[in-house]
Amino acid sequence: MNSSRKLRYAMVGGGRDAFIGAVHRKAAALDGQIELVAGALSANPDKARASGRDLFLADDRNHGSWQELLADELKRPAHERIDFVSIVTPNHLHFPVAQAFVDAGFHVVCDKPLVHTSAQALALVAAVQRQGTVFGVTHNYTGYPLVRQMREMVRSGAIGTIRKVIVEYHQGWLATAVEATNNKQAAWRMDPAQSGMAGAMGDIGSHAENLLTTVTGLEIEAICADLSAMGAGRTLDDDANMLLHLKGGVRGVLVASQICVGCENDLRLRVFGTEGTLDWSQENPNRLLHTPLNEAPRTLTRGGPGLCEAAIRASRLPSGHPEGFIEAFANIYLGVAADIRARLAGVAPDAIAADYPRVADGARGVRFIEKVLESSRSGQKWTALD
Amino acid sequence: MNSSRKLRYAMVGGGRDAFIGAVHRKAAALDGQIELVAGALSANPDKARASGRDLFLADDRNHGSWQELLADELKRPAHERIDFVSIVTPNHLHFPVAQAFVDAGFHVVCDKPLVHTSAQALALVAAVQRQGTVFGVTHNYTGYPLVRQMREMVRSGAIGTIRKVIVEYHQGWLATAVEATNNKQAAWRMDPAQSGMAGAMGDIGSHAENLLTTVTGLEIEAICADLSAMGAGRTLDDDANMLLHLKGGVRGVLVASQICVGCENDLRLRVFGTEGTLDWSQENPNRLLHTPLNEAPRTLTRGGPGLCEAAIRASRLPSGHPEGFIEAFANIYLGVAADIRARLAGVAPDAIAADYPRVADGARGVRFIEKVLESSRSGQKWTALD
Amino acid sequence: MNSSRKLRYAMVGGGRDAFIGAVHRKAAALDGQIELVAGALSANPDKARASGRDLFLADDRNHGSWQELLADELKRPAHERIDFVSIVTPNHLHFPVAQAFVDAGFHVVCDKPLVHTSAQALALVAAVQRQGTVFGVTHNYTGYPLVRQMREMVRSGAIGTIRKVIVEYHQGWLATAVEATNNKQAAWRMDPAQSGMAGAMGDIGSHAENLLTTVTGLEIEAICADLSAMGAGRTLDDDANMLLHLKGGVRGVLVASQICVGCENDLRLRVFGTEGTLDWSQENPNRLLHTPLNEAPRTLTRGGPGLCEAAIRASRLPSGHPEGFIEAFANIYLGVAADIRARLAGVAPDAIAADYPRVADGARGVRFIEKVLESSRSGQKWTALD
Amino acid sequence: MNSSRKLRYAMVGGGRDAFIGAVHRKAAALDGQIELVAGALSANPDKARASGRDLFLADDRNHGSWQELLADELKRPAHERIDFVSIVTPNHLHFPVAQAFVDAGFHVVCDKPLVHTSAQALALVAAVQRQGTVFGVTHNYTGYPLVRQMREMVRSGAIGTIRKVIVEYHQGWLATAVEATNNKQAAWRMDPAQSGMAGAMGDIGSHAENLLTTVTGLEIEAICADLSAMGAGRTLDDDANMLLHLKGGVRGVLVASQICVGCENDLRLRVFGTEGTLDWSQENPNRLLHTPLNEAPRTLTRGGPGLCEAAIRASRLPSGHPEGFIEAFANIYLGVAADIRARLAGVAPDAIAADYPRVADGARGVRFIEKVLESSRSGQKWTALD
Repeated sequence: MNSSRKLRYAMVGGGRDAFIGAVHRKAAALDGQIELVAGALSANPDKARASGRDLFLADDRNHGSWQELLADELKRPAHERIDFVSIVTPNHLHFPVAQAFVDAGFHVVCDKPLVHTSAQALALVAAVQRQGTVFGVTHNYTGYPLVRQMREMVRSGAIGTIRKVIVEYHQGWLATAVEATNNKQAAWRMDPAQSGMAGAMGDIGSHAENLLTTVTGLEIEAICADLSAMGAGRTLDDDANMLLHLKGGVRGVLVASQICVGCENDLRLRVFGTEGTLDWSQENPNRLLHTPLNEAPRTLTRGGPGLCEAAIRASRLPSGHPEGFIEAFANIYLGVAADIRARLAGVAPDAIAADYPRVADGARGVRFIEKVLESSRSGQKWTALD
Repeated sequence: MNSSRKLRYAMVGGGRDAFIGAVHRKAAALDGQIELVAGALSANPDKARASGRDLFLADDRNHGSWQELLADELKRPAHERIDFVSIVTPNHLHFPVAQAFVDAGFHVVCDKPLVHTSAQALALVAAVQRQGTVFGVTHNYTGYPLVRQMREMVRSGAIGTIRKVIVEYHQGWLATAVEATNNKQAAWRMDPAQSGMAGAMGDIGSHAENLLTTVTGLEIEAICADLSAMGAGRTLDDDANMLLHLKGGVRGVLVASQICVGCENDLRLRVFGTEGTLDWSQENPNRLLHTPLNEAPRTLTRGGPGLCEAAIRASRLPSGHPEGFIEAFANIYLGVAADIRARLAGVAPDAIAADYPRVADGARGVRFIEKVLESSRSGQKWTALD
Repeated sequence: MNSSRKLRYAMVGGGRDAFIGAVHRKAAALDGQIELVAGALSANPDKARASGRDLFLADDRNHGSWQELLADELKRPAHERIDFVSIVTPNHLHFPVAQAFVDAGFHVVCDKPLVHTSAQALALVAAVQRQGTVFGVTHNYTGYPLVRQMREMVRSGAIGTIRKVIVEYHQGWLATAVEATNNKQAAWRMDPAQSGMAGAMGDIGSHAENLLTTVTGLEIEAICADLSAMGAGRTLDDDANMLLHLKGGVRGVLVASQICVGCENDLRLRVFGTEGTLDWSQENPNRLLHTPLNEAPRTLTRGGPGLCEAAIRASRLPSGHPEGFIEAFANIYLGVAADIRARLAGVAPDAIAADYPRVADGARGVRFIEKVLESSRSGQKWTALD
Repeated sequence: MNSSRKLRYAMVGGGRDAFIGAVHRKAAALDGQIELVAGALSANPDKARASGRDLFLADDRNHGSWQELLADELKRPAHERIDFVSIVTPNHLHFPVAQAFVDAGFHVVCDKPLVHTSAQALALVAAVQRQGTVFGVTHNYTGYPLVRQMREMVRSGAIGTIRKVIVEYHQGWLATAVEATNNKQAAWRMDPAQSGMAGAMGDIGSHAENLLTTVTGLEIEAICADLSAMGAGRTLDDDANMLLHLKGGVRGVLVASQICVGCENDLRLRVFGTEGTLDWSQENPNRLLHTPLNEAPRTLTRGGPGLCEAAIRASRLPSGHPEGFIEAFANIYLGVAADIRARLAGVAPDAIAADYPRVADGARGVRFIEKVLESSRSGQKWTALD
């Protein structure tokens, strides 16, 4: 924390009408460690600049395209230059923008799903490795303190050997054909050209996979998936159900859907071990139910007794003062910032501080989505994730 | 209700140490409409008689075997004879006992799963049809008032067209090898000779199927199942996960497990329709969450406003005075009793009163279990329920 | 349990249209230990007899008045005679009926509030003492297994020294003037001649006092009460709020109301000690929240791990199989039955089995109500319960 | 929003180890509308400056005392000068600091309770009126979107005429003598010199009063209070229970305590009207239970259907993406900012935007605390708030 300046970043995408860009900005701003200094906030140059003025960007750093932004940053002296770029465009632009900034040596935060194909993902992983840059993917749900608590409890053996995992992610906002109204969020998500090969699987299923894998540390070995497009006229999935085989004989179920009327953002993970069970729901994120074998269930609370160091440090407020989505998201930004600051200081990052999903996590998610789609089309039961 | 006498019944099984027999007796006794007058309460004659004395059975109606009971009843005059028999033995005895009593013209209440094989089930269905007798199967969860409310809301179109169904049934009591201790309940359930072809699927998966089918009225067309025996040395499944295809393009997920530490009797059904969602949990049975499309979720409560006739009549107490498992179970007995009384009176039964799972429901459940086992062994994705 | 016959009882009150009489009958019937053999089910002789026929009473034990019932029982030989009488009339009849049966040497179960005045209560306590009979008062909420668990945890010091107690009892069914419609339950409760000096305080406030006192074992020393009649035209209170001083410097709050729209039967008790807190709600009675100082809260469940002998024995079903209001009520009946059976056997009753609210508890409740009314009229802050 | 620059503010108090100062900073930063440019972050000059460096303050705006800060700001040209000051010191410094900045013509945000005495409060109200400046008090709980929804539903008559109000605020962190350890937060709160005349009443009771009054719009006419100091050696209250009479015959109960083991920040408000009930809990702030008379309860969710304009505009994220304490707090800052921006623009503020607790609200809270203390010492039942 004791650093001489805030980190500077630019944003690509996230202009007026966008949803996730504003979340990124609030998350980055929350802790007073990071400031937005430049942007190319829309693919439409006029809208980009108008959006930048809303955010008090200086005129000379408020660009009409990400190419201009990149070119301008490269011309600036180091003490002005951004420390990283945040990419919050629709999915189809993640790859070219990320690739360009990584190739130019910039650190990157990129929204999910990382890219459209495994080929792109592997190219990006290779580029990041080549450049040695920081690359965070905003699988933001792993930023919740109690998700980190779950991960630690799994690692430490608090619930014994995992036997079964159930991850669910239900939303209802695509229950009707909102993409045919002027709902921009729905429109691009249901358009394969912008959204990619998958609908709900890419939008929220990728979060479910990331949460499950991050918490359990288990590799998914095979998938048996059943995807549907329930909404009339849709070509992309809006409902996904699948069975999983995980390493070590662990059984799993993953359900993701955006047509479940009344469900808001109902992401829930249950991990069943030989010695205990963990149960966490994103809509009630300050509580984690832990039932040890043959004991009464106990509710761990963010800020309350019994938490590990990682959960304690990911928390800002005393227990009972609810933290939420933005705080978890901000933890991803703090993780990226810690990694960048360590590099600026020429030291190894603190492992607990520099905790964020990496480019490899994003690539694994892309591979997962591809295999889910393959499995869903297949008549054979199990599709291996080789 | 205004009848001149209580109905009389005998019980087969359910002696000392048994679990479900005592539940049947309390359920039958609750409403003062039915009295236990005879029994063959154990396969062990001494234990059978000792158990009968505990229950204040008259000596001449307290038998050492079900065969004696049957013979004795057939000798008695009509005004003494039982109106029906309740069969609450371990699973493997359901078939011979039920068959014998049906063949002798008695009405029957039988615990679930009905029998071990479809061949037995079809034989029993045929026998009941031939005799024209009443035959209830205690899929007791459908006795809950709010389950009947769900069924009615589906039928009336309150949630539009069903798109997706998730039914879960999690228990944790077989997380460790309790069958190797002196836990009688676990021992017979994990013994194929007594329990049948399936473990958790028969014990609780059959309830899940019954609940799903009863509420939605939808036919399951195909199954993709993944069963496991997690507990060391088990030959029967203790964990089951499956994808379902239901009639009309409806997607489903059914999960049943008895190795989920901390789960008690966690049966939950969610039905997602185009116009709304229903969500009910057995452990909190006096509440039903109904979210209409684009409206705030509302909580229907047993005894509260907005319920259908069937839910109202299945309820005994004002709202806020919790009813539970036994009351729901008693509703199955009241349903059977209403059907029997209608026959005694020579009238058609009231449809709402005579509401209970029939022998055909039990047979469908047996068929379902068989197909689940077949699917689990199969390398092909979908196994049809032809 | 191992007894040669069921106990026999008669009921006074509880005819057609009554609420609580049917609850008593179901509670008494549930466990197969007690049978209804006689009755005087209404103050209206014709209605009394019609009601008795509904319940399959023999004609010669189906009486038109409680006086006839009493006279008839006294004439019968011991092997036919009732073991006890249940009094479930409107409040104003509790005293004469109870007094007469006690004086005649019968054991009694009486609904609450016990009687109208402390003078009556003391007379009844004296009569019971004189006769040495069993007298149970159906403060049924203390029959819940987890209420007994709370009491035991307080006694054993699990939460240290009590500092504060909050008991709330909210209902909403008298939010509108339902007594002016044909709601019989509301009509007699809001009629001072039948209900007594208090409205909500007598109907539900007395339960709150009983629950608080039973669980904590603490004597209430002084009251500061504020009663209101919110409903137009009401002379009896329908809303009550009060501060309490309990022995040992313990602070308390008691709130009871029947005008709280949306509240069903929302009785909740919180006990705050120096070493932990207990929190229990009647509408979710199978769970008890226990938070030890500086530890995560744990949820004790009926049938689950960590319960005391009294809670275990008050439970019928495995955890997760909800028990409710009737089961708790039945525990009061089982307690009375255990005490009567011990007397029949000439032995001392088992303390855990013979657990039920006594006439002295009922009398204390009557005294409490009187003092609450006195406090509410008083301009001085504290009214002592001398 | 469409403004040419961020608002600038300075902070007094809130240095290293402080709790609420960091909350203010995060709340102010969240939406990118306000920036911290100056500070006097501690009464200890060295600590003040070290704290300022942590926050990246420029050296010439990082002061050792609030007097220096004030003098420095007055010397700066308008385009550099702060738009407002945030006062987040222990309570005893609120008055002198606020008075000085108001007298100098600055807008102010001040933590609660506003000041120590009504005399101070009235002086401050007069000063603000004289200067015509903006003065916000961070009774932050009224910043929650669903609190604004409650207020609107009360105003619009959605629950009819209010009859009863219950507000509870339970914490447990002072259950043991943490003030004797090195817990700075506890130490100053339990020290009358820094905290003022009241302990829990000032710290959290004042929030309860503010929430109740803000939502209901009802004037408290009389109080009957019972305050205790449960913790050994405490001179200030740590537990408070009281009855309230509100305008129009409305009855109320207010309970606030900091010795309730296991309670975290359990602020709950229930408002009972003739036509419905509202029930909201701070620990689950994204949900509001509304039960209309004779209808099923419905759960309004932040971001969900059925909300008023004020609730919609106070929300940042779609439903199901939890917002929490900081977001609510930030809404107070946005309200103050909207009022300041309107003045800068020379226009009337938008009423929904400029929604925040004013100096008069703070003064009413101080008066309330004084009267509660008076009532608690009094032997007469009711103490009027004239």
